[in-house]
Amino acid sequence: MLTNESLPDQMKVNGKQYHTIWPDTMNPAIIHCIDQRKLPFEFVTEQLTTAGQVCEAIRDMHLRGAPLIGVAAAFGIYLSALEHEKSPGIQQELIRTAGLLKAARPTAVNLKYAVDRQLAVVQGVQNPEKIISLLFTGAQNLLEEELENCRMIGKHGLEIIKKICRKKGNEEINILTHCNAGWLACIDYGTATAPIYLAHDEGIRVHVWVDETRPRNQGARLTAWELGQHGVKHTIIADNTGGHLMQHGMVDLVLVGSDRTTRNGDVANKIGTYLKALAAFDNGIPFYAALPSTSIDWNTDDGLSRIPIEVRDPDEVHYLEGMEDNMIRKIRITPAESTALNFGFDVTPARLITGLITEKGLCEASAEGLIALFSQK
Amino acid sequence: MLTNESLPDQMKVNGKQYHTIWPDTMNPAIIHCIDQRKLPFEFVTEQLTTAGQVCEAIRDMHLRGAPLIGVAAAFGIYLSALEHEKSPGIQQELIRTAGLLKAARPTAVNLKYAVDRQLAVVQGVQNPEKIISLLFTGAQNLLEEELENCRMIGKHGLEIIKKICRKKGNEEINILTHCNAGWLACIDYGTATAPIYLAHDEGIRVHVWVDETRPRNQGARLTAWELGQHGVKHTIIADNTGGHLMQHGMVDLVLVGSDRTTRNGDVANKIGTYLKALAAFDNGIPFYAALPSTSIDWNTDDGLSRIPIEVRDPDEVHYLEGMEDNMIRKIRITPAESTALNFGFDVTPARLITGLITEKGLCEASAEGLIALFSQK
Repeated sequence: MLTNESLPDQMKVNGKQYHTIWPDTMNPAIIHCIDQRKLPFEFVTEQLTTAGQVCEAIRDMHLRGAPLIGVAAAFGIYLSALEHEKSPGIQQELIRTAGLLKAARPTAVNLKYAVDRQLAVVQGVQNPEKIISLLFTGAQNLLEEELENCRMIGKHGLEIIKKICRKKGNEEINILTHCNAGWLACIDYGTATAPIYLAHDEGIRVHVWVDETRPRNQGARLTAWELGQHGVKHTIIADNTGGHLMQHGMVDLVLVGSDRTTRNGDVANKIGTYLKALAAFDNGIPFYAALPSTSIDWNTDDGLSRIPIEVRDPDEVHYLEGMEDNMIRKIRITPAESTALNFGFDVTPARLITGLITEKGLCEASAEGLIALFSQK
Repeated sequence: MLTNESLPDQMKVNGKQYHTIWPDTMNPAIIHCIDQRKLPFEFVTEQLTTAGQVCEAIRDMHLRGAPLIGVAAAFGIYLSALEHEKSPGIQQELIRTAGLLKAARPTAVNLKYAVDRQLAVVQGVQNPEKIISLLFTGAQNLLEEELENCRMIGKHGLEIIKKICRKKGNEEINILTHCNAGWLACIDYGTATAPIYLAHDEGIRVHVWVDETRPRNQGARLTAWELGQHGVKHTIIADNTGGHLMQHGMVDLVLVGSDRTTRNGDVANKIGTYLKALAAFDNGIPFYAALPSTSIDWNTDDGLSRIPIEVRDPDEVHYLEGMEDNMIRKIRITPAESTALNFGFDVTPARLITGLITEKGLCEASAEGLIALFSQK
């Protein structure tokens, strides 16, 4: 159950408490979500009532972030059951929907995790009403687990910040983050941002370098916006800037999320993460990836060769959206004749990662570290 | 003199031959330049008739690139002499102008080089007409030297490309470049692009990965445009992408320019260059900086601590210009409340650089390498 304790103040939008996704309290056939595509310029929510809509919302990034798309996919399976309540082949339909949801985006493992878990919940169940009820509860459970995962990631990550804080004699701490591993990528708190929010709330002076994160600018658009909503001091920088800042002692800690972490600790995250890891390593700056265990791929042990990297529409490089005279406009920023290529993620090898922050605690980015922490695996 | 041999076909714009800057053939009191701010959307030239206009053109980046701003500054001193032809304190005025021109942008050493050289040319000369004539010739000489420097950089750099070509069995060669070290940054040919143009003209199959180069997008706007004008195959990528490409064998060579190279081989270049050098080093990919000796700072031997790094207007991060419905529009791409920081350059330590390509040939990025090549220093 969602309790007041698990819903802190921070996840408010213009004073009103929000999650990124939630079932309608009156009509459980409606799933609401924040349509993140217009942020920070407009705050829009959307109603999802079919699995097809969920697929589209994931594929077209109305919602994004490994933990969030996992939860959305879980609700997608539930909506599919509602749609096919009267069909004799409801189980077949769920399997078909599961395939579509898994294929919506290739890199994060959370889609597969969530969808497989939902299918397992209803395996062998014949009664459609029972299936629907189990899938709704299953999706809600995953939502609440992901929320709690982020809260615990925040708690464990806070210790890293506190340690640096003591070392710096309570001076301001500069944390660099890439893309949005904030609450908008999760349900609440975020992964990489959770320790930052907690530190801020404890009165620790944190300042965040927000990588713009081209081409979709999730840093400039989403991370800056959510840090601003919560009153966390931050500065947007071009993705090119982080190395220079690290060379000049202007970064104390790098905190990023992870779309897929392999068994051996390689981290697939938003394209460009690898470059920041190289710079952190070159300058002796701690580099942590924060992730719930739902984004660990226990079956893969070489991120570089084994994780499928999404190639997205080149128009995301060619065109950019922003505001002019209170209107959202989309402009072309490249020569009309030029082509572009748009990889969504890259893989940071475990050797460059200081550690992983999970809901179970901190560990080394290695098979030994992960297995010791998640001993049940 | 400009001969046909030194003006190849490539530097044409819509079929007409251009340099980036040139004195009017009828009225030598007018210096023309390409105003690069509207490229690739509009091709505009501008007339400079005062030293103040030259200062502004350098500061506001109507023209940019270390070699080009050096030549522009040399013409600036000449225009100052024209303006103060009747003043008894003409030499004082030139010194004042020299100070303004040097201060227009801090990182490239070419401003200082060009301005000091012009002052030396007229030192002790009293006759204003003589001063004007010497300064005009001085600026023209620098222009022609920079043109020849780029041609020679092209020739020497071509050997690197040919070597890779042989190794790859004449397969397509993928070259990554950052920012614009093209002919638009110079007079003709470019520095990093010169070997690419020459290779292309020799029928070697080259493909260029063009780093967009936020925040001013000189890669997407200028490099892509000039490569396109010359018919060189290229693909624009977000600055975040190069590391991933290098991890996957999709880059054979990195070629960048340099705004200032220290005596020991450190290279200050457009912000983000350091990150690409780290990735090239991590993946064993050759990383070369191409530069005329006019951008070598023989008096500095620690780039990281000694080269002043320009901090530019944060609005270059907040706003972006592009086309919508055939109109150039400027949109805000960040939350209204967020701040931004905009460093223009970073320093790549010599240890990450495979070699330097200069007009005198290739050398190691080290004091030994540079001194051996330029033994007169």
